Amino acid sequence: MTEGEVQGVRKRALSATKAEEIHAVELKVRKRQPDKPCHRPRDSLFSWNSGFDNFTGFVNWAFLLLSIGGLRLLLENFIKYGIRVDPIQWVYMLINEESSECPTLILLLYHVVPVVLCLIIEKALSVEIVPASIGMLAHIVNLVSVILVPMVLIHVKDGFSLIGASTITSVYSVLFLKIWSYIQVNMWCRTARQQNKGHLRRQSVSISNLQRAAVNPKKQDREKSSSEDNNGGLVQYPDNLNLKDLYYFMLAPTLCYELNFAKTERIRKRFLLRRTFEVLAGTQIILAVIQQWMIPSIKNSLVPFSNMDYTVATERLLKLAIPNHLAWLIMFYILFHSWLNLLGELLHFADRNFYADWWNSDNIDVFWRTWNLPVHRWALRHLYLPMVDMGYGKSSASILVFFFSAFFHEYMVSVPLRTYKIWAFMGMMGQIPLSFMSRFVEKRYGPRFGNIVVWASIIIGQPLCIMMYYHDYMVIHHGSTIAEYSQV
Amino acid sequence: MTEGEVQGVRKRALSATKAEEIHAVELKVRKRQPDKPCHRPRDSLFSWNSGFDNFTGFVNWAFLLLSIGGLRLLLENFIKYGIRVDPIQWVYMLINEESSECPTLILLLYHVVPVVLCLIIEKALSVEIVPASIGMLAHIVNLVSVILVPMVLIHVKDGFSLIGASTITSVYSVLFLKIWSYIQVNMWCRTARQQNKGHLRRQSVSISNLQRAAVNPKKQDREKSSSEDNNGGLVQYPDNLNLKDLYYFMLAPTLCYELNFAKTERIRKRFLLRRTFEVLAGTQIILAVIQQWMIPSIKNSLVPFSNMDYTVATERLLKLAIPNHLAWLIMFYILFHSWLNLLGELLHFADRNFYADWWNSDNIDVFWRTWNLPVHRWALRHLYLPMVDMGYGKSSASILVFFFSAFFHEYMVSVPLRTYKIWAFMGMMGQIPLSFMSRFVEKRYGPRFGNIVVWASIIIGQPLCIMMYYHDYMVIHHGSTIAEYSQV
Repeated sequence: MTEGEVQGVRKRALSATKAEEIHAVELKVRKRQPDKPCHRPRDSLFSWNSGFDNFTGFVNWAFLLLSIGGLRLLLENFIKYGIRVDPIQWVYMLINEESSECPTLILLLYHVVPVVLCLIIEKALSVEIVPASIGMLAHIVNLVSVILVPMVLIHVKDGFSLIGASTITSVYSVLFLKIWSYIQVNMWCRTARQQNKGHLRRQSVSISNLQRAAVNPKKQDREKSSSEDNNGGLVQYPDNLNLKDLYYFMLAPTLCYELNFAKTERIRKRFLLRRTFEVLAGTQIILAVIQQWMIPSIKNSLVPFSNMDYTVATERLLKLAIPNHLAWLIMFYILFHSWLNLLGELLHFADRNFYADWWNSDNIDVFWRTWNLPVHRWALRHLYLPMVDMGYGKSSASILVFFFSAFFHEYMVSVPLRTYKIWAFMGMMGQIPLSFMSRFVEKRYGPRFGNIVVWASIIIGQPLCIMMYYHDYMVIHHGSTIAEYSQV
Repeated sequence: MTEGEVQGVRKRALSATKAEEIHAVELKVRKRQPDKPCHRPRDSLFSWNSGFDNFTGFVNWAFLLLSIGGLRLLLENFIKYGIRVDPIQWVYMLINEESSECPTLILLLYHVVPVVLCLIIEKALSVEIVPASIGMLAHIVNLVSVILVPMVLIHVKDGFSLIGASTITSVYSVLFLKIWSYIQVNMWCRTARQQNKGHLRRQSVSISNLQRAAVNPKKQDREKSSSEDNNGGLVQYPDNLNLKDLYYFMLAPTLCYELNFAKTERIRKRFLLRRTFEVLAGTQIILAVIQQWMIPSIKNSLVPFSNMDYTVATERLLKLAIPNHLAWLIMFYILFHSWLNLLGELLHFADRNFYADWWNSDNIDVFWRTWNLPVHRWALRHLYLPMVDMGYGKSSASILVFFFSAFFHEYMVSVPLRTYKIWAFMGMMGQIPLSFMSRFVEKRYGPRFGNIVVWASIIIGQPLCIMMYYHDYMVIHHGSTIAEYSQV
């Protein structure tokens, strides 16, 4: 081969279409050279032209760096504050050493009163010895008392600890939602009973035949089993009005009453043990994170927040964000997975759908629909759909659900703190503009960035509210309660 | 439908095989009830039975938490130390205010001497006025001087700054590898010329015909172009021995010499501008990270390391790990992507394969083969393969490559610091057991955990070495140089 030929090959490389073919030929020529060539035209991987996009190793990198950063913060914290974990302190907090009257325990036991009252009113309504309007009025008074009694008592009496008061407001919020559901479901049943009276006899034969054909195609099976047992089928309306059924619902891991809950066949002992261990260990971990990590951060944030020192306040906020988020994640797992599954297993309750995959949610709306399914299901079944059925628009029904949710967030925070600021309420109402923003980000920049907005609002929003409350709490109760609080 | 029928349906649910079908039927029955049932048997997503495994949202979570943690550290750092970034300080460091002799600049210019010497020896060898053995001896003396001259000068003279001395050792290490490659390639060419003498004339016609058929099937094209230009083809052996060719290689972004490098057609101006901007901005960022973040951490680590206070020393180590790793990542990008691509673009150098996807590497071996391709290619072509050709085993060749690499790491760290400890050497030699460990982890726990071991060794290994050196440096040079160093 002459030099002219090679030059010809090289010249042709100018036409980009034949470039690949030429390179291969050129390489062949150069490979014959005695200098063992090892270079050929290539782009760097970070250049767009390379088309390379496998950066999965950076996912491991991120999780590793996160662990290292976490370990470092843990060490720094122990060096700075020593060991502050003290499980016995929490026991003191709960049994409330200041007062010998145990108001927390008494208020917890008081829950029997509205529950039994509700059952009595329902009984009276079912046998129609009380007019529907009077019964409903009694129910409303009873429901309002469920919210007001703890609120007033905690505000008036001084003996409640922060933990005790928080427990009470949470329990009474759940109680309120459960009783609401119980009342509404029984009302639906009464309405159905009213409508079916008269129609029932006429159509029963034909409907029964249709159902028979649809439900149970194998006649032998059906006839064999129907001859065995007659009193264990689906419970029908007035039969459900008894204390055992009501208390099953009160303990069951759901806020939505129904007459015949889906049941499991047996209790899995190993599953039960694991969930019990998780609840016990996880609670200790959360308490330790709060004592060791969050309380020092919150205390240190007081002065910068008062002085409006933005740089230091932001640093404190971000410092609090990490342990708060950690505690929230563990709390989520313990409450929604371990605790509700534990209850469900004990009560043979089969529907364990307590949360969906909120961690993948691409906007705030999806997050609120997926992270707390018992409340979401309640809000849908007992607030949103009834409102839509009553003719309200979907958006006004949504906003009412948000208002309702915001009220309970505020209730569960302000009442125990006895600091009637609206930070939690504002935080919840702030979800409405945030929802618009996250959906905009999702559409404009793709689902990944929508998901990042959701996570950012969870990680930053909560500690911001906590600091606001702590600041106001200290400003309001400064003189009288600072001594009590510094025990925490 | 009677209660007995429904009970029959429920009883059949006991047989697990028909469970799904039964649930559907049961749901149909229950859906007709007036209590609007909303529960059905389901497992929680975190239960193994659910089969759910989509946790991609946590990847975004990890990156977000990392950013928040980084932002917090940045704020904390500014609050604690104020702004320590001062680009002018680095200029002082380089021009070395202490000495008016500018030893760094003089040593940098001195590189011309070994380069020109090398060319003269090669010229003499190519025209065979010097025996091969004498020529090679001269080459070896020249190569050893490339390593020794800066080492001795930096040790003896006091005028070098840390930055200046580091630049010199890096430049002379590269020079050493390039000259080695130049000598070896020219030796291969001479050997080939020797072998071909005599054979050449006999076979040239037939080979030329074969090549013509293989390389250039379109005769018209070839004939047209071959008539245009005759002196621009592949450069053959003795023609390459000139200063222009040698300096092209000295500047080119590769350590492996060849007579005919693959070239690009044109300089992409926008690409060039972007790479230039990255080099300028990135350098400033690295210097800022070092001044603002690393130096305070390193200084604070001195006392705990001396006192063998393990908890505090570990905390310091992890605190240093984050900015050090950040600086290393930026350094990698700037050096291997921006700087080498900038050089390549200016010199029409077409092979931009400076790094492979080391971030995905599943064990230490893959990491060392992929993160620094110029050195890897040099080691393979000029050390490993020649040794294997000489009959050595593959593992002894590998270990020699490691020794060689370890020596240069030590050289580039110890000489500028004038602290002849073997931490860098040990760090490199420690890669051999680490390699066994990471391959074990990869096989035992899967590639993901192998990748995590690689990342961990990068993130933790480097700051550990830095602290060791800093500690020894302070202990050795304490009295005389602490004032100088505290300026850094």
